[in-house]
This record gives sequence, C-alpha cells and structure tokens, in this order.
Amino acid sequence: MVYATDIGMMATRGKVRLGIIGAGRIGQVHCLALSRNPKAEVVIVADFFVKAAEACAQKFGIPSAVQDWKDVIRNPAVDGVIICSPSDTHHEIILGAAKAGKHIFCEKPIDYNLKRIDEALATVAQSGVKFQLGFQRRFDANFQRVRQAVQGGEIGEPFMLNIKSFDPAPPPLAYLKQSGGLFFDMMTHDFDMARFVVGSEITEVTATATSFDKEIAAIGDITTAIVSLKFENGAIGVIQCCRKAVYGYDQRLEVLGSEGAVDINNNYPNTATISGANNIRRDLPLNFFMDRYKQAYEDEMISFVDCIANDTPPVVTGMDGKIPVVLAFAATKSLKENRAVKVNEILFGKTHM
Amino acid sequence: MVYATDIGMMATRGKVRLGIIGAGRIGQVHCLALSRNPKAEVVIVADFFVKAAEACAQKFGIPSAVQDWKDVIRNPAVDGVIICSPSDTHHEIILGAAKAGKHIFCEKPIDYNLKRIDEALATVAQSGVKFQLGFQRRFDANFQRVRQAVQGGEIGEPFMLNIKSFDPAPPPLAYLKQSGGLFFDMMTHDFDMARFVVGSEITEVTATATSFDKEIAAIGDITTAIVSLKFENGAIGVIQCCRKAVYGYDQRLEVLGSEGAVDINNNYPNTATISGANNIRRDLPLNFFMDRYKQAYEDEMISFVDCIANDTPPVVTGMDGKIPVVLAFAATKSLKENRAVKVNEILFGKTHM
Amino acid sequence: MVYATDIGMMATRGKVRLGIIGAGRIGQVHCLALSRNPKAEVVIVADFFVKAAEACAQKFGIPSAVQDWKDVIRNPAVDGVIICSPSDTHHEIILGAAKAGKHIFCEKPIDYNLKRIDEALATVAQSGVKFQLGFQRRFDANFQRVRQAVQGGEIGEPFMLNIKSFDPAPPPLAYLKQSGGLFFDMMTHDFDMARFVVGSEITEVTATATSFDKEIAAIGDITTAIVSLKFENGAIGVIQCCRKAVYGYDQRLEVLGSEGAVDINNNYPNTATISGANNIRRDLPLNFFMDRYKQAYEDEMISFVDCIANDTPPVVTGMDGKIPVVLAFAATKSLKENRAVKVNEILFGKTHM
Amino acid sequence: MVYATDIGMMATRGKVRLGIIGAGRIGQVHCLALSRNPKAEVVIVADFFVKAAEACAQKFGIPSAVQDWKDVIRNPAVDGVIICSPSDTHHEIILGAAKAGKHIFCEKPIDYNLKRIDEALATVAQSGVKFQLGFQRRFDANFQRVRQAVQGGEIGEPFMLNIKSFDPAPPPLAYLKQSGGLFFDMMTHDFDMARFVVGSEITEVTATATSFDKEIAAIGDITTAIVSLKFENGAIGVIQCCRKAVYGYDQRLEVLGSEGAVDINNNYPNTATISGANNIRRDLPLNFFMDRYKQAYEDEMISFVDCIANDTPPVVTGMDGKIPVVLAFAATKSLKENRAVKVNEILFGKTHM
Repeated sequence: MVYATDIGMMATRGKVRLGIIGAGRIGQVHCLALSRNPKAEVVIVADFFVKAAEACAQKFGIPSAVQDWKDVIRNPAVDGVIICSPSDTHHEIILGAAKAGKHIFCEKPIDYNLKRIDEALATVAQSGVKFQLGFQRRFDANFQRVRQAVQGGEIGEPFMLNIKSFDPAPPPLAYLKQSGGLFFDMMTHDFDMARFVVGSEITEVTATATSFDKEIAAIGDITTAIVSLKFENGAIGVIQCCRKAVYGYDQRLEVLGSEGAVDINNNYPNTATISGANNIRRDLPLNFFMDRYKQAYEDEMISFVDCIANDTPPVVTGMDGKIPVVLAFAATKSLKENRAVKVNEILFGKTHM
Repeated sequence: MVYATDIGMMATRGKVRLGIIGAGRIGQVHCLALSRNPKAEVVIVADFFVKAAEACAQKFGIPSAVQDWKDVIRNPAVDGVIICSPSDTHHEIILGAAKAGKHIFCEKPIDYNLKRIDEALATVAQSGVKFQLGFQRRFDANFQRVRQAVQGGEIGEPFMLNIKSFDPAPPPLAYLKQSGGLFFDMMTHDFDMARFVVGSEITEVTATATSFDKEIAAIGDITTAIVSLKFENGAIGVIQCCRKAVYGYDQRLEVLGSEGAVDINNNYPNTATISGANNIRRDLPLNFFMDRYKQAYEDEMISFVDCIANDTPPVVTGMDGKIPVVLAFAATKSLKENRAVKVNEILFGKTHM
Repeated sequence: MVYATDIGMMATRGKVRLGIIGAGRIGQVHCLALSRNPKAEVVIVADFFVKAAEACAQKFGIPSAVQDWKDVIRNPAVDGVIICSPSDTHHEIILGAAKAGKHIFCEKPIDYNLKRIDEALATVAQSGVKFQLGFQRRFDANFQRVRQAVQGGEIGEPFMLNIKSFDPAPPPLAYLKQSGGLFFDMMTHDFDMARFVVGSEITEVTATATSFDKEIAAIGDITTAIVSLKFENGAIGVIQCCRKAVYGYDQRLEVLGSEGAVDINNNYPNTATISGANNIRRDLPLNFFMDRYKQAYEDEMISFVDCIANDTPPVVTGMDGKIPVVLAFAATKSLKENRAVKVNEILFGKTHM
Repeated sequence: MVYATDIGMMATRGKVRLGIIGAGRIGQVHCLALSRNPKAEVVIVADFFVKAAEACAQKFGIPSAVQDWKDVIRNPAVDGVIICSPSDTHHEIILGAAKAGKHIFCEKPIDYNLKRIDEALATVAQSGVKFQLGFQRRFDANFQRVRQAVQGGEIGEPFMLNIKSFDPAPPPLAYLKQSGGLFFDMMTHDFDMARFVVGSEITEVTATATSFDKEIAAIGDITTAIVSLKFENGAIGVIQCCRKAVYGYDQRLEVLGSEGAVDINNNYPNTATISGANNIRRDLPLNFFMDRYKQAYEDEMISFVDCIANDTPPVVTGMDGKIPVVLAFAATKSLKENRAVKVNEILFGKTHM
C-alpha cells in the first residue's frame, strides 16, 4: 500500500508528473490541456500503436514514448496516469496503476461488468491513490449553473428533471457493435448529469425505446430512447436520447422545482442572427462533444492535477463511474421486460452482469 | 333522424343561431367570441343558476335566458348548442341535443366513462348533427405551426416528442376531488396535442408520477407526472405534467425528426428585456389558459360556426374526445401496476370503466 | 362653445355614439374595434366614395352611410368623430367637428403645416371637445413596458435611446410623392415613441440619410435615415428608419440608463423554432402595422371611448400630434444643412412652414 | 533595410521567437496565448519595472527578463516584438524595432498624433517588417460572422450599421485624464469594427454626446456618445458608446441590407435561464474585454505568429490603426462644431493634430 501522505509528497516536489496511456483523440485532448497547465507536465505517453505514442510525444514535447502501458506505471517519475486506452483495457490498467501507487484519471467507463468495476474500485481504495472518472460534463459551465441553481435553492425543492441528449449522427456500426448499446454508450453520461444536478440517487428506471435505423436495429441496438427516473428525494425525471439530430449536438437540461425552474440551452459558435426574406436564422450549435466540451475537458484536467497537487479528493469518484453503469443495466432490463425496474434489482441481483 | 341536408339548410337561412348551456367562465368566453363573429348569433343561454344565465344574457345582449337546458334544445330557433355545463351533465345534454337535431360544441370531457362516451358518440352519429370537442389548443398558432412542420416534412420522419405542460398552481382541493385526477383533468389536453402534432395514434403508455403536495397526495392524486408514449408510426414520446410552476403557465412542445426538430416556447405579455446589475430578465409568460389561449378560444368558435354554415366536418371530432380518456385510463393503470400498458388493454378490456 | 359638462352628458345617456369619416382600411379597423366595444356604437359612416361608405355600413351593421363628412358632424346623434380621411382633409374636418361640439379622434397627421396645426389645436381648445391623436403605438404592450421601466425607475436615469423602425417595403411612388417624405411619413411615429418612452422633450436633432432606391431618390426622398436626438433631461438618442427590411416590419427600441437597460423585440406569429441541417430558424415577424399593432388599434379606440364616457383627458393629445411634425421639419433642415438643428429654430422660426 | 526574404528565413529556422515589451495585464495575456502556441516561443520580456518583467518571465518560463526595451530589439534571437507598453512609448519602439528588422505586433494606438503615426508607418514600410495592430475584435467569432454575412452577400447590399459598445463602468479618472477621451479611448475600436464589417471607408461623421458623470464632465470628457457615419459605398451607420452599463460589457452590432439583416448579441458565461415567481432571468454577460475577447486575444496572436512563419501579410495593418484615430479627431471636431465633419477635413487639414 502506498500511503496518501507519500502520494501527496510526490506532488509537492514540483509539477505533477503524468503519464498518458492511449494517444488517440481524447488522449491528445488531455495532452493539450496539460500542456497549458503550469502545475503539470506529461513525462511519458504509451500507445499499443507505438507510432501514435511517438507522434503524440513529438507534438506535445513529451520526453518519452512507449508501447506498453506497464512502462508508464513502472516509471518512478510518474505521479499519476491518464487512462485513454480502449474501454476493455481500463480494468487491468486501473488495477496495475493503483498497485503501483499512481493516481488515476480514467476515461469512462471503468468497465461494463459490475464485478470488475467493484474490483477496480476496491483496489483503488486499498491503494489510497486518487481516482477521478472522465465525466467532463461535470465541468461544463451550463451544467454547473444548473447544479448551483438546484443546490443553492434558486428553484426550491426539485420536482422534475428533463435531459435531452442527442448526437449529430450515429457512430459507425463497427463501433456500435462493441459499444454496449445506447444506454451504456450514450446515456451513462446523462445518468451522471441526472445525479449531478438533482443531487439525489436514482432508485427506479423505466425505458421506452425504438430504432429508426434499420442497420442499428439489425444489430439489436436502439437509436432513440426515453428513460423515466425516480429519485430518492421524491423527484422524478426523464432522459431523452437520440443518436441523430441533423442540426448537431443537442445537450439540454431542465429542472422544475417548487420555487421555479432552470434550463440550459446549447452552445453556439457565434451569436449572429440572420434575418432574411424567408426566415430568421442562426448557425447550428457546436457540432460535437470535442467542441461543446472543449473548456470542460481542460477544466477536468486542471481539477485532477489540483487534487493531486493539493491532496484533495477528486470531484468525480469511482462510485460516480459505477452507478451510471448500474442504471444502464436497469434501463436495459426495463426495456426488455416493459416495466419499471428498481435499481436495487441490479445492485443486488445476479443475472445481468 | 335529422338529415344533414336539413341541418345545412338551417344555417343557410342566415346567421348560425346558437344556444349556450352553462353561463360560467368558459360559457362567457364563447359568448364573447360569438359576439365578435358576424356569422353567428347567440339566441338563448341556460344555466341551472338562472341568475347567472340572466347576467350573461344582459352582458352579451342575448334575448333569452333560461334555467333548463332542455328549453335550449327544444327551441326551434336554435341551430346548435355550446355545452359548457359541469362535466357530469355533458352525456345527457349531448344525447338530448343530438336527438333534437342540434349541432353540438362540447367542452371536454364528453364523459369519463367509456361506455357513456361510446353511447354519446353513437347517438351523435345516428342523428347526423355536427359534433366538435373543445380542444382549443388545436387552434393555437404555436401548436399549429408544429403540426405544420411535422405534416409538411420540415423535420422529416418524427422520432420523438416531448410535451411540457405545467399549470401555475393547483386548483382547489374540492375541485381536484371530483376532477378524475391529473391524467384526466390535465393530461387529456396533452394526449390530444401528442396525437395532433405527431399525426399518429398512441399504442402504449408508461407512467411515472409523484406528489409534492401533501393534501393532494392525501386525496390520492399526483402533482407531477411523466408518461412515455409509443406511437403507431414508430415514434416515441414523453409528456411531463405538473400542477405547479410558480413562474406561470408553461406549455411547450418539441418534436425531433430525421431531418430536424421543431419546438415552441411560451407566449409572453410583451417582449421587453430588462438588463440590471444582477441579471437579464423578462416578465413572466401569460399566466393561464384564458390568456394563453385567448385567440384559440375565439378561433375554435369561428371554426364551429363555419362547419355549420358551410356544412363541413368539424376539425375536432368525438373520437378526438374519446381517445385521450382511454389514454388517461391507460396511464392510471400503468402507474398502478408500474409497467407499460397497451392502449388496447383499455379499449378492449373490461375492468377499468 | 360647447361646455364640457354638456359633452359629458351626451355620453352618460348610454353608449358613446360615433361617426366614422373615411371608410378605407384604417376606418374599417376602427369600425371593427368599435363593434367589439360594448360601450360604443357607430351610428354613421362617411366617405367621399359613397359606395365605400355603404359597403362599410353593411359590413359592420352601421345604420347610416353618407358621402359628405359634414353630414356626420351635423348629426345630433353623434357624440364624436373618427377622422380617417386623407391627411389633407384633417384640418378642415377638425375645425368643423370642434365647432360642432363633437369629440375628435384623428389619425395622424393633424396637418403638415404648423400654422394649420396651431389653428386646429386652438379651435379644439376653444370648443372644449376631447381630441385624441392616432398614435396607436402608445397602446402597444412592448412600448408601454419600456415606458413603465423608464418611468418606474427600473433602469435608473435614462442615458441613451435607440429606435429601429423599418418597413417591409416602400409604399408606391405615387404615395411617396405626397407623403411629405420619410421624416414626416415614417419617423413622426418614432419621434412620438422617443418622447413617450424617455418622458422628456427633444431639443435638438441631427440627421444623416441616404437613398438606396433610385426612383425614390429621383423624387427627392430618402430610404434610410439616422437622426440623433438631444433630450431636455440630458439624455441622447438615435432613431434609425428604413423603408425596406425584407424580413418584415422591424420595430425595436432600447433605452440604456444609469441602473440598467430595457429593450423590446419584434412580435412573431408563433414561437416555433425549426432546427434543420443548415440552420436554426423561425418564421418572420408579423409583417406590417395592421398585424403588429392589431391589439393597439383596438386599445386606442377603447381609450378614446372611455375618455368620452368617463369625461377624462385623452392620453394622446393634440400637442403630441404637433411636436413630431416640428421634429420632422428640424430633421429635414438638419439633413439639408448638414448640422445639428435646435427644435426652437423650427418652433420660433419662419421659413420652413 | 532588412529584406523580407531574410525575415522570412528567420522564421523558417523553427519556432517564431518573440520578445514582449511591457509585462502588464495585456502583455501577460499575450504570453499566455503564446505559451499555448506550438509555433512560437517567447525568448525575452522587458518592462520598465523590471520586477514585473522578472515575475512575468518566471510565470511563463521566459528565459530572459530585462528593463530596457532596446535590449529586446537588439537581441539577435528575436524575430518579432509584441508592444504592450504605455501608449506614449509605442511610436519610439515601433521606429526602433522596424529599424532593427523585428516584426511588430503593437497594441492600439500607434499614437494619437497623426504625424507620428505616419512616421511610424513609413518606417515600417521602409524596413519591410510585418506590422500587425492589436484590434482583437477582428478575431472575435461574432464580428467575423457579421463580416462574413456582409461580404458573402447574405444580406445583400449594406444599407445601415448600428454598433452598441458599452463598458461596465468608467475607468479611474486618472486614466481618463490621459486617455484622449471617449472617441480615442473607446470608440476607435468601434470605428475599426464599422470599417471591418461594412467593408468600406467612412467619409463623414457627426457626433452627439453627453456626460452623466459630473467628475468626468469636469475633466472635459463625455460618458455617452452617438456618432453617425457615412460610408464610401453609400451606406450609413451609427455608433453608440457609453462608459457605464451596470449589467456588464455590451458589445453588439447590426447591419441592415437590401436582402436582410445580421445582428450579434453578447456572450454569456452560461446559457442557463432561471424562471422564478417574479421573472425569467439569466446571468449577466461576460463582464469585460478580457473575458469577452479571451479567444480573440489568443487567435490574434496565432495570426501574428502565422504571418511571420508563413511570410503572409498581417490581417490588421498599420493603416487600420491610423484611420480610427483620424475618425476620432473628426468626431471630436463634429462634437465641438455641432455639424457633420468630412474625414478629409482631418486627413488633409492642419489644426487638429
């Protein structure tokens, strides 16, 4: 076991030194954010495709590029790792990093198997390293403003939540086949937002869904879903997801409460309105998550570096990573059985994992 | 049986002559609308509280005021009746008016008993009189624009509907006790809008609900509900209702489709924005249905008069009145049994009526 | 001289009885508004084209239709007249009506000759009849909300005003030739709004203008103008007018003050937003003044009837009609001499009238 | 003379190497932007207060900190300089840097004396170095979208421009005393935007102004101004400036054209709307230029580095820096003489400089 005080010590030596595991798109986003963060430095990057690691190292001035993620966690100069590798490697890397005493930032999901998630979280807990999950929306100014309104009493007691979460277009079929499906792939983000803004746990879900794409239907997935929620505090809610909104990335949320309501709109590349002979129009919203959550990605990395540097708890925990997966299982079961499913059926059940 | 040609004849004599049954608030709204309609005249008004009938007659220059609605349908000078009396009298008056060959405009609901609804619709069908139900939202410019967008292909094939329908404050408990509950009292309007804008029948509903008001909970009603819908055309939808939105009457709707989306916002008394040292703000939306649907009430009456004058079919039919009641039964059953309920379970079932 | 008490008496006999002079478009708008007003009745309508008077009489159930406006003011059953005839007849009819003791509602302008305006106002004053000018924008909910914000201290002390006032398309050249030009024809309304919302008199104007239409330029008129204003209370302002905005009738206004700002937007036929693959759009605003100010036209007539029925002062006075004409002269002079022009140069000058 | 090919050579050696002159707030903004730009490195920073230079060097990892700007231009490792020192030093530093063959990015103004501006621009032209002026708004997404709409024909031929440019609060009196006044200090930015979006030169200005702050009035400055513009292409326009808008930094602009209009709104920290019992509200806009133009500051530095690295012309030229000063002189003269002033009166006049 690595003691927290030791871990804290590392950081106080100077900059927080990080290793990137996975040099793909999101890995590079984190490299960029870290390159702008005066408190951090990336000392090593790993990718199974070592050319990708090398290209990333060159682009961001990272001194070392390797193929094997184990070389990252073995590196004594590394205080923490940023796990951006494929989802099915997360579990193993988390275990390895935790045992090596490295702090962990992990892209979602931890895993899609609840036993493996529990094992990862237990190992992290034993090791005492910090663990932050990559739910970047928690760092978005809009969602934060909603949470502030709810937590700060601006709308009184929350009655009802509505989340709309639409992607501009479905991912390739090949991706979808191994994605776990809409509830796991897309809606886990929204389950997290539901918990984040309402500030209460979800106890029951009911799913209604359909598929408007024949190819997606053929692989057994859905394109469009509505999941109703019950919260522990008595509030109810509904999440709407769709894999296709031709006008772009649509990420909105509303909470109605006893003293008012709060809602957020999309972000746009500019505020211009064009009035013409046929209509009054504006440009489409920011198209996808890389643009929409650009600042949030930067801010989540600042938060992770700070929690190491200042030895404070991460703001998105391992449990925050587990619960949305539980909810996705519950939604899947609800859809199959056409009935409301209590979250406890999943948490304490056996057959679904 | 009265032949349609005879009925048409009446109207061609000159102005369409109408009798008002029920001189309360909504009855007076219709009187006002008809007083502005050069094609119509109100010749008689009835109210069980005859003083109310007399006051109404004086206010709108109606020549005759009576206590008994039977005096209205017996009156040979009357072409049609506007039924604004208490809900539990609608069935009897519809039967009487239809048998007397009077055209019928009836405030919702026809009844809350499906057998009695069927009996009323059958009698109307046999008599050949025109029957229009008082779903005034069908005449609202916002909802009409959504329907136009969907029907006209502006958003492609509809994928998913969301309706938000919040009242500014709950009605008195005394009213709620005999209202039939939120699904019947509030959501029937929204069920109608769902069918109206999507242009397809609802086949299955799933309800989630809660009550944030102890007194309302004590009488077994809910304050806040989410009902998921499946449509015959494959679309899905969700209706959110709440009896309390402190900022006023909130009536919004969105449809996402394969080629885009359409949404409508609330109506406001003015467009002014005030920018102050603390926030940017505007006045609250129009507070309740009388203000929000002022023009719609006038337009539905124009439509009813026109359908008599021109011998054309009414645009809101008796079946449009029946289906939302069926859906309210289905939602009630879903809430009780915590599962999806097919509409056919109600239509062809036995126990619920 | 007719005594005010006598005039008050007339009204107390029952409904306020009015005569319409001019059965064109605006005359019919007033007939419609009055037909909905239970306190008023139109007893006679006059139009030089007597067929128009007769058609109007039939349409609105007016008992008498005549050619000569003198028959209206001679009619003892008439309490007041609504002057909707061509602008160059206003002066003569005002004199006649005032001398006959008839209350006067007059469409703008009183006249475009300041001496004749003064003569008309003096005659009205001597006669004691009520005189209301047809500045319908004063009854519009948006402009009223701005005035309320300024007068009520919501934005502190007013610093600066901006009015944008664009027509959808220029009127026919034939109309423009006798219209007096943009400052008289269009901007007098905006001068009135400037005074109305700021609540202070304008002391100086400076005009900049251009013409983007060759035909309009050829008759010596402008299409597009900017007029800067100084107010007695120290505020400054600017009015922008244009005869052509292809997206419709654009009527906006903003006031910046020491404690905030207030602005108003256009009115739209519906609130629908369509999100498509190319843009986010909404329908065009209400196209022209008849639609935009529909309620305002009705409300100004209610106000006029009420001021007669209750013997209260009109809310838009003869002086309110004179000052915008003075300002239009000042703007014309400023444009010609390319310098700021004090309003007193016009009020106490000689050459311009 | 340094030949352009030589200058281009420097850049091709690797990163563009820059020296910062002036380590205050704006200097640090540029340091931050450059620290994120992989094509550039800051090799030296100078500030008369050498402690400030040293602090800046430490914060951004700049290897050298000096007191004397001449040490920057003498440094052979420097390709270009970023002039962020007090305005009255700009002229001298431009001359020095140009003669030393260093590319120049200069914060506005070049100078407030037209002869000295001309001298600076002539020296730059002779030296062949690149010169970019710090009009960061040209890099803002909103203003760029307006320019694109106008240049791309989306609104047809431009008729009329309106710019609103309000600061949240006046700067300290001590600053104002040496600022040159509102037309120089604030409105030069807006003059630049007017030229930028309309794409035509201004030929005539007319100013109206007032002061609502007694202390500011006492030092002979104004707080609130309206300046009407005529453009070479026939369009007209108006700029409204105010030193105090309690709700924050208000930067809006509209252009009306023959085929439509384009307008831009402010930027906000989030999109949340709070609906409460009293109003519908949102948070205030981004408060001041550092927040509002954060991305624009970063992008103008990218543009400057690119123009050196790629040997392309700067997008904001020295002439773009001169003309707004000319217009400020014209506005000042117009205000004093209460008449329209042609820009040529300043360009070819003598008394004003």
